[in-house]
Amino acid sequence: MPAQAIITLTSDFGLTDPYVAAMKGVILSLNPNAVIVDVSHAVRPQRIEQGAFLLESARPYFPAHAVHVAVVDPGVGTARRGLALRTPLGVFVGPDNGVLSPTLADEIRKGAGEGGGRVSLPAGIAGVELTNPRYHQLPVSDTFHGRDVFAPAAAHLSLGVALAELGETVADVFVLPPFRARRLPDGPLAGRVIHVDGFGNLITDVRADDLPPAEMTVELRGRAVKGLRRTYAEGTGLTALVGSSGFLEIALPGGSAAAETGADIGEPVTVRA
Amino acid sequence: MPAQAIITLTSDFGLTDPYVAAMKGVILSLNPNAVIVDVSHAVRPQRIEQGAFLLESARPYFPAHAVHVAVVDPGVGTARRGLALRTPLGVFVGPDNGVLSPTLADEIRKGAGEGGGRVSLPAGIAGVELTNPRYHQLPVSDTFHGRDVFAPAAAHLSLGVALAELGETVADVFVLPPFRARRLPDGPLAGRVIHVDGFGNLITDVRADDLPPAEMTVELRGRAVKGLRRTYAEGTGLTALVGSSGFLEIALPGGSAAAETGADIGEPVTVRA
Amino acid sequence: MPAQAIITLTSDFGLTDPYVAAMKGVILSLNPNAVIVDVSHAVRPQRIEQGAFLLESARPYFPAHAVHVAVVDPGVGTARRGLALRTPLGVFVGPDNGVLSPTLADEIRKGAGEGGGRVSLPAGIAGVELTNPRYHQLPVSDTFHGRDVFAPAAAHLSLGVALAELGETVADVFVLPPFRARRLPDGPLAGRVIHVDGFGNLITDVRADDLPPAEMTVELRGRAVKGLRRTYAEGTGLTALVGSSGFLEIALPGGSAAAETGADIGEPVTVRA
Repeated sequence: MPAQAIITLTSDFGLTDPYVAAMKGVILSLNPNAVIVDVSHAVRPQRIEQGAFLLESARPYFPAHAVHVAVVDPGVGTARRGLALRTPLGVFVGPDNGVLSPTLADEIRKGAGEGGGRVSLPAGIAGVELTNPRYHQLPVSDTFHGRDVFAPAAAHLSLGVALAELGETVADVFVLPPFRARRLPDGPLAGRVIHVDGFGNLITDVRADDLPPAEMTVELRGRAVKGLRRTYAEGTGLTALVGSSGFLEIALPGGSAAAETGADIGEPVTVRA
Repeated sequence: MPAQAIITLTSDFGLTDPYVAAMKGVILSLNPNAVIVDVSHAVRPQRIEQGAFLLESARPYFPAHAVHVAVVDPGVGTARRGLALRTPLGVFVGPDNGVLSPTLADEIRKGAGEGGGRVSLPAGIAGVELTNPRYHQLPVSDTFHGRDVFAPAAAHLSLGVALAELGETVADVFVLPPFRARRLPDGPLAGRVIHVDGFGNLITDVRADDLPPAEMTVELRGRAVKGLRRTYAEGTGLTALVGSSGFLEIALPGGSAAAETGADIGEPVTVRA
Repeated sequence: MPAQAIITLTSDFGLTDPYVAAMKGVILSLNPNAVIVDVSHAVRPQRIEQGAFLLESARPYFPAHAVHVAVVDPGVGTARRGLALRTPLGVFVGPDNGVLSPTLADEIRKGAGEGGGRVSLPAGIAGVELTNPRYHQLPVSDTFHGRDVFAPAAAHLSLGVALAELGETVADVFVLPPFRARRLPDGPLAGRVIHVDGFGNLITDVRADDLPPAEMTVELRGRAVKGLRRTYAEGTGLTALVGSSGFLEIALPGGSAAAETGADIGEPVTVRA
């Protein structure tokens, strides 16, 4: 472990409240050299899939020794497990409800089915349930495992504590299906909006490498957006382009595509050649 | 002092403006090894009590050598004093208007009376007024002591400068009464909402250890919430539970209790056995 | 270069999205000792001048070895250049669209004309276009040079890489005119609102040292604000005072001057003796 370990935080806690600061206090009390980076705390309340998407968007830009904590946790205090997973992409800590999906390759996530499901951890990924109270912030609150279970786990892992110390080995994890639009039998892609960014850009689950090569049309909320631009500046009116995470997005240069179309997370999108 | 001193910041400055960054620039110019943690900058403008509450919620998770700067400061530039207090819980820096209340034990804060008041510093707590210009960022603005007085004081203290260097010793501090609901003569607790978090949870000043042991009812804005749940997931409809800071809160699982009830900070709450 | 280099970030990315985190991941992957400070990510979408103003407000409080990255970049992916400028005030990195204006003295910015324009770099300031792919995060996205061009440039510069390594020398830069109200032939100052802060204070481009010495009147949206106060607490109703950045601002103590007047960025302001 490097002296200055990176720990990222993704949550639906917002920045109004002291929740994120409490997590940082717990981490820094255990590892004063931790460098903590906020991915986003503006995940919509309890939108697990959005949290997984934001983490997946930021993760590739961090070194593989980083520890990523993701807390979108409507089931806090119930029987849902808290996990730590060591993967070649980094170490991931959070509830076992799908928010840790970015730890697993799409190939494996496909096995989860439509609404998500439990898949076996593949070779090369080790997981534990965070049951060892020695690595908890005590007493553990029933409503804030981010502070009392996940933050201390991340801090201890960043200090080099062995994964196996933190609890019992697990063999599977709950994951959401990959962020990838379905191809309909007759050719078009059927996707949906998975995030609306601060500019009002509608980010879909249609991947750049699935796009038709020719002139294409994106249909969304009764609007047809023709062609694919390379940059925001090229577009006038609603504009389709591949965003910085490799997903198709609909933008309105100089404005908000979300406001213009009324579309939000979940809105269906069809791409035709 | 450890090489990497922790300095926390709590304010009503928001994150739109460069005010917080200016404070951080001042701190890092003086102590490049400072680790700065934002508690919250979303205190409502000039709501001193809310600032004190947020600081009090986060503070227990930081080491005792941390320096906590709290700037909710409607009287900036007037005769109100700027203080630094060294306590067994940490070092606290900010205006002498009640925002530093979390430095003192409830037992002492009780002496302040209903609307807050001046109490003597107890044994074990040393305080100074930040009058020594050698430790100011000059020229001192009349409107931004966060940057020009409090940030440099925190940085110097984090470097090990003696408290007494920063100004004249003070014997008292203005504090708000403790966050604790009153018990009415006939038994019920009369409290109020002191914070609304980002989920819309209504956080009250009713402490877990004051709650009646049996089935209880919380009354708020004409609604009666029966029973006390352990987790958010257990609740349906408006739900009472003890939140992660040890205070009674009213939540709406999957929604916002604030939106559902229309209650905001200050709303009276009654708890009956 | 100091071991712990400071890198500041100013953008219109907001804090909802993982864009800022991706930049931080890129920086920390290259320079694990970088200390990253957010100036603001709440610049209004593509408001270059506001971004320049916020950076200019925070910059004086950082040491001269700091690297300042400013990304308000409607032309990302087009022919607009990406620059790094080494100045006596710090190193500045961003698109060549005016957001880097705070690097140049007012005297030089005056040469840019009303809407901004290209001026020669003066002696003492060295600039390069960020064309060397060795210092890019590859592949470079067409829509996110903050992550792929500017963040890695800042990280490499913070590590001591020579400016000239990053690309070809440039001789000029696009700057906006200085933030300074015009003096009308008959004496009054004609300025405008350039920022609305989180308290609703209307911050103008009228500088303290241009203000008339005697009792003055500020006219804005049909309202006349008489006199100049020293602190917010002194004012009742709309109040004129010199804010912490040395600019005239209109405040409403205990409220929001923006809400009270309906004024926003761009609103004309006249100051009469």
